[in-house]
Amino acid sequence: MIHIGIIGAGRIGKVHLRSITYHVKNAFVKAVADPFMNEETENFIRGMGVEKIYGDYRELLADPDIDAVLVCSSTDTHAAISIEAIRAGKHVFCEKPVDHALDRIQAVADALADHPGCKFQVGFNRRFDHNFAAVRKAYDQGKIGEAHILKITSRDPEPPNPAYIKVSGGMFLDMTIHDFDMACFLTGSDVEEVYVQSAVLVDPAIGEQGDVDTAIITLKMTNGALAVIDNSRRAVYGYDQRAELFGSKGMAATANDTFSTVVVSNGEGVIREKPLYFFLERYMESFAEEMRQFVDACENGTEVPVGIHAGMQAVKIGLAAGKSVEEHRPVKISEMETNG
Amino acid sequence: MIHIGIIGAGRIGKVHLRSITYHVKNAFVKAVADPFMNEETENFIRGMGVEKIYGDYRELLADPDIDAVLVCSSTDTHAAISIEAIRAGKHVFCEKPVDHALDRIQAVADALADHPGCKFQVGFNRRFDHNFAAVRKAYDQGKIGEAHILKITSRDPEPPNPAYIKVSGGMFLDMTIHDFDMACFLTGSDVEEVYVQSAVLVDPAIGEQGDVDTAIITLKMTNGALAVIDNSRRAVYGYDQRAELFGSKGMAATANDTFSTVVVSNGEGVIREKPLYFFLERYMESFAEEMRQFVDACENGTEVPVGIHAGMQAVKIGLAAGKSVEEHRPVKISEMETNG
Amino acid sequence: MIHIGIIGAGRIGKVHLRSITYHVKNAFVKAVADPFMNEETENFIRGMGVEKIYGDYRELLADPDIDAVLVCSSTDTHAAISIEAIRAGKHVFCEKPVDHALDRIQAVADALADHPGCKFQVGFNRRFDHNFAAVRKAYDQGKIGEAHILKITSRDPEPPNPAYIKVSGGMFLDMTIHDFDMACFLTGSDVEEVYVQSAVLVDPAIGEQGDVDTAIITLKMTNGALAVIDNSRRAVYGYDQRAELFGSKGMAATANDTFSTVVVSNGEGVIREKPLYFFLERYMESFAEEMRQFVDACENGTEVPVGIHAGMQAVKIGLAAGKSVEEHRPVKISEMETNG
Amino acid sequence: MIHIGIIGAGRIGKVHLRSITYHVKNAFVKAVADPFMNEETENFIRGMGVEKIYGDYRELLADPDIDAVLVCSSTDTHAAISIEAIRAGKHVFCEKPVDHALDRIQAVADALADHPGCKFQVGFNRRFDHNFAAVRKAYDQGKIGEAHILKITSRDPEPPNPAYIKVSGGMFLDMTIHDFDMACFLTGSDVEEVYVQSAVLVDPAIGEQGDVDTAIITLKMTNGALAVIDNSRRAVYGYDQRAELFGSKGMAATANDTFSTVVVSNGEGVIREKPLYFFLERYMESFAEEMRQFVDACENGTEVPVGIHAGMQAVKIGLAAGKSVEEHRPVKISEMETNG
Repeated sequence: MIHIGIIGAGRIGKVHLRSITYHVKNAFVKAVADPFMNEETENFIRGMGVEKIYGDYRELLADPDIDAVLVCSSTDTHAAISIEAIRAGKHVFCEKPVDHALDRIQAVADALADHPGCKFQVGFNRRFDHNFAAVRKAYDQGKIGEAHILKITSRDPEPPNPAYIKVSGGMFLDMTIHDFDMACFLTGSDVEEVYVQSAVLVDPAIGEQGDVDTAIITLKMTNGALAVIDNSRRAVYGYDQRAELFGSKGMAATANDTFSTVVVSNGEGVIREKPLYFFLERYMESFAEEMRQFVDACENGTEVPVGIHAGMQAVKIGLAAGKSVEEHRPVKISEMETNG
Repeated sequence: MIHIGIIGAGRIGKVHLRSITYHVKNAFVKAVADPFMNEETENFIRGMGVEKIYGDYRELLADPDIDAVLVCSSTDTHAAISIEAIRAGKHVFCEKPVDHALDRIQAVADALADHPGCKFQVGFNRRFDHNFAAVRKAYDQGKIGEAHILKITSRDPEPPNPAYIKVSGGMFLDMTIHDFDMACFLTGSDVEEVYVQSAVLVDPAIGEQGDVDTAIITLKMTNGALAVIDNSRRAVYGYDQRAELFGSKGMAATANDTFSTVVVSNGEGVIREKPLYFFLERYMESFAEEMRQFVDACENGTEVPVGIHAGMQAVKIGLAAGKSVEEHRPVKISEMETNG
Repeated sequence: MIHIGIIGAGRIGKVHLRSITYHVKNAFVKAVADPFMNEETENFIRGMGVEKIYGDYRELLADPDIDAVLVCSSTDTHAAISIEAIRAGKHVFCEKPVDHALDRIQAVADALADHPGCKFQVGFNRRFDHNFAAVRKAYDQGKIGEAHILKITSRDPEPPNPAYIKVSGGMFLDMTIHDFDMACFLTGSDVEEVYVQSAVLVDPAIGEQGDVDTAIITLKMTNGALAVIDNSRRAVYGYDQRAELFGSKGMAATANDTFSTVVVSNGEGVIREKPLYFFLERYMESFAEEMRQFVDACENGTEVPVGIHAGMQAVKIGLAAGKSVEEHRPVKISEMETNG
Repeated sequence: MIHIGIIGAGRIGKVHLRSITYHVKNAFVKAVADPFMNEETENFIRGMGVEKIYGDYRELLADPDIDAVLVCSSTDTHAAISIEAIRAGKHVFCEKPVDHALDRIQAVADALADHPGCKFQVGFNRRFDHNFAAVRKAYDQGKIGEAHILKITSRDPEPPNPAYIKVSGGMFLDMTIHDFDMACFLTGSDVEEVYVQSAVLVDPAIGEQGDVDTAIITLKMTNGALAVIDNSRRAVYGYDQRAELFGSKGMAATANDTFSTVVVSNGEGVIREKPLYFFLERYMESFAEEMRQFVDACENGTEVPVGIHAGMQAVKIGLAAGKSVEEHRPVKISEMETNG
């Protein structure tokens, strides 16, 4: 039985608390730490049977009964808290991105090198989505042969508040970072080079923040495959999350999930439902599955499914994407090393 | 090269004229006969390169150059003209139904028995539809195994003029007759028994004519399979023509055809096109294919794909269906023999 | 907070225990009763936090703390235990069918008439399935207009042990009973008459038990709609559960659920996944939803979504279906009254 | 009635001859010219009712009865013959590409400037495909709003003979050129800049010819939209031809065409047909439609649907794509002007 502490009781912290309580065997949440706890949140946490609520995460880390912590605090604190937790002898599940700065991610990697027994997992939950996992499985089973072309469609139903963009690091680091990780996951490869063609077509306020809201991103993978991601901050029909992996022996493609399969035929046409609205609807089950695998790694010493290398890669690609926009040219990931 | 004469220059006669002219090798239409020829029709016929236009079909039958005739006149004349044509030494393609009365169909069968060299085909064009033929092909290839359940959906986009119903013989003989033939075709079997549950739900005027407009028809096939047809005279989304054959090894199912595959996603949903509007749109290619096979049979002595037995079966089932409605019980096809 | 006791710790009892523990707010299972408890089952029950385990359900009924009981014992005990529970002042959720004999169902109805405050729900879980509920919702929203034709496809992935058939009451009472209830639910109507065309095509051993394994069942609904159910005990591609409601303004149709949306294209074709294997996979979420609504009715006095009338209807239709097979004729549901 | 002469009796010349004969009103083919005529071809041409067969196209151009010519000869002769035909007072339909060299295309444009009455159409037949035309129609109807992202998938079922590549100008000029034109057509815009990420993944022999066989091509359109094309010379499941236009109000997407809609469900999965094999199967109807519109322009003086500007654009984009590969950078179409 793994005793878990959650640091950060915001939206994603609550999602994990609920998942572990209801859907993960051999684990329970013993404590939650958050400096900004309100009554509603506290009631929710208590209702899940959590024993301890702390204001300061250091108190949580000091509890010798806690085996593993989930770092669900704001992005700028992920790396520092992760390092403290590693040093405190805890296994760590860190929300994505680990950090916006490569040197701080490297510091986490260094801490892990000093604590070889520590299980460290990054929160790229989409790897555990039933659809994307099925594409990877088809690939692993040889149904696609060698990977030639990967296509990822990733469009949000509505743009974030422009004010959020400053904090988030921009579209490539807050939104596309999942797609970068998915490109690595689905092709079983790292990225060698990135080129971005982007635009501000959804909301001029986003452009005023120095960011883009629409992009086509081409990746050259180290295994020779080509990949393309298309992003938009607003698809009026809802959250559009698809992938298609094409290779020498075939293609595996996914469609969007819907609430039901119902199709209405009438004088207007033959009408299916819109995709599930956003990530909490579409990816809820994947949050449980990533927890199950993290708990399994902690309990049975198996390898974590998404380690620090993946966490580093995705941020490097995101930074290279930004550089590609600035300099309007293809950028090699190896150019990012010097930033690190 | 087969020289063809068409008797009856109505809608279906014109369809065949056009098909043969443009889409059938080794055949051309030499003459058309119709007592009610107007200028537009005559121009159309001339435009297709037809040499002779007759008022009286007997003149057409007297032309020794004509190898085969298409009987496209009104239903009540099909049997009599077919018999004359058979006796005149012509091959005959007869539109469906051969007749509403079994004894008159039997008379055609008797004439054929006296003329063993005559090729006689009945116009059940849907057997040549790409979708239904693909179901039958899957069955013939053993992909379905033994047939257990056949389901046919057949709904028109709008009801006929109620006045037409008197002439047409009612829904079972003018509309469902195609589905009865399809049941025989798709299962490779005759029908043993029929039961109908029906209603007037579309238009009370149809009920006033003594007919029904909505029905679920259960068939027991002689090979042991069960079949069900559902009919409606009005589907607001258009012509609904589907079949599904389920058996011991699998199922083959078809969807409706659309003009294009385009799908529009917007705030309302994910919207495909309605089915092709009606039979001229949906089945146009099947009319050409039935002609190709008829011409092939005439030219090369191969067997016609739809003979007098099929023509008789479908009408027997239609009459049995009517009897089932009247007497509210399952009716064996063998009961129909006495009417014959 | 509703305190629940579960009577019967077999497969479905465990499903409800798990659902309530993990997925239903404001309820918990306080006790489970089963005379045949093994260690594994007991461990499972304890693991869900259940306080009391009884051998005799009467002890459970005697616990004044228990508000509601789930009757998950064998079918032949449903009615008697339900009546005892009603008289003990408990709300009752009774698994389907309530009984095979109409007089015993009537006895439950009579007991309910004496206890007007008792909430009594029958376990027709499919009403809570996301797909079927979406069809009903479309109907309620007027998207279909007046119901004309309902089609239900219901095929199991493999037949039960022939020995089970004696106990189960046969296909109409153990399998089709869900479809009968679905016909009533989706059309918002009772059934007036039933006609069955059936066969033994899957397994001769089923025929030797006096049952059938393949059927087409036509229903005339009291609101004038026609319905057809097709059943098979074995679909090689898995559990086939679809419905299609056609009416004056449109059609709502559902497809099978799959584990993922992945489609593999290769030299063989364009291949989707098979349907989810069987009812525990396909309908798991519906079991939770029926519990939520039952708990809501108990707690807030709202009406139960599936009452004794529905429980009686489905069995009447099932018995009428059997009579239709025996006497090879359409049977009115009103004929069943005399059995009751 | 338009009298047509066809120059070049190869595969595409025959396609047009057949289309005009069978599917285009108000036009017929009076003459065909080809220096390499064999008996089979001659029989085919005679069978279509063509009066004159020439070895030298100049004789055909000299026939004052001929209103319009189709230039279906080898690519290197398109421009010169087109210019001769324009000067001879004929309307011209020129197969794509007009030429590989921009200056020779410009020479055709110059000749057209001198003959304002001449109707000149380029053979980008895919604009007339039912699927792609439906996307454009949805766009024109405002269903998509402003175009943001266009995605085109274009994969051949098998690579050409590597020897052909030298003649063809390489993948961008023989295959992607259709997709370049489609990008312009579907967005109603020209291209401003192109960037290519490409590889040799299908056949090393293609690489040895200096060409690529797999590519992701990003286009910036002059109207601000972004577009991406993915190409492969070999999709094992067949000809993959899809497009998806995403904008501020919605998305229109197409799927591949299949021979029938049949779906087989069995123990392996739920299996649809592969796409239609190659362009003669998939685009046959579009060849007829482009002829209808060309004939209409010749006869009624309406504007041709695909003029010299489109012919020039597509080649410029193709050349820019090649330059992008060579110099590994985004290339503006305006850089191509100097080549012209």
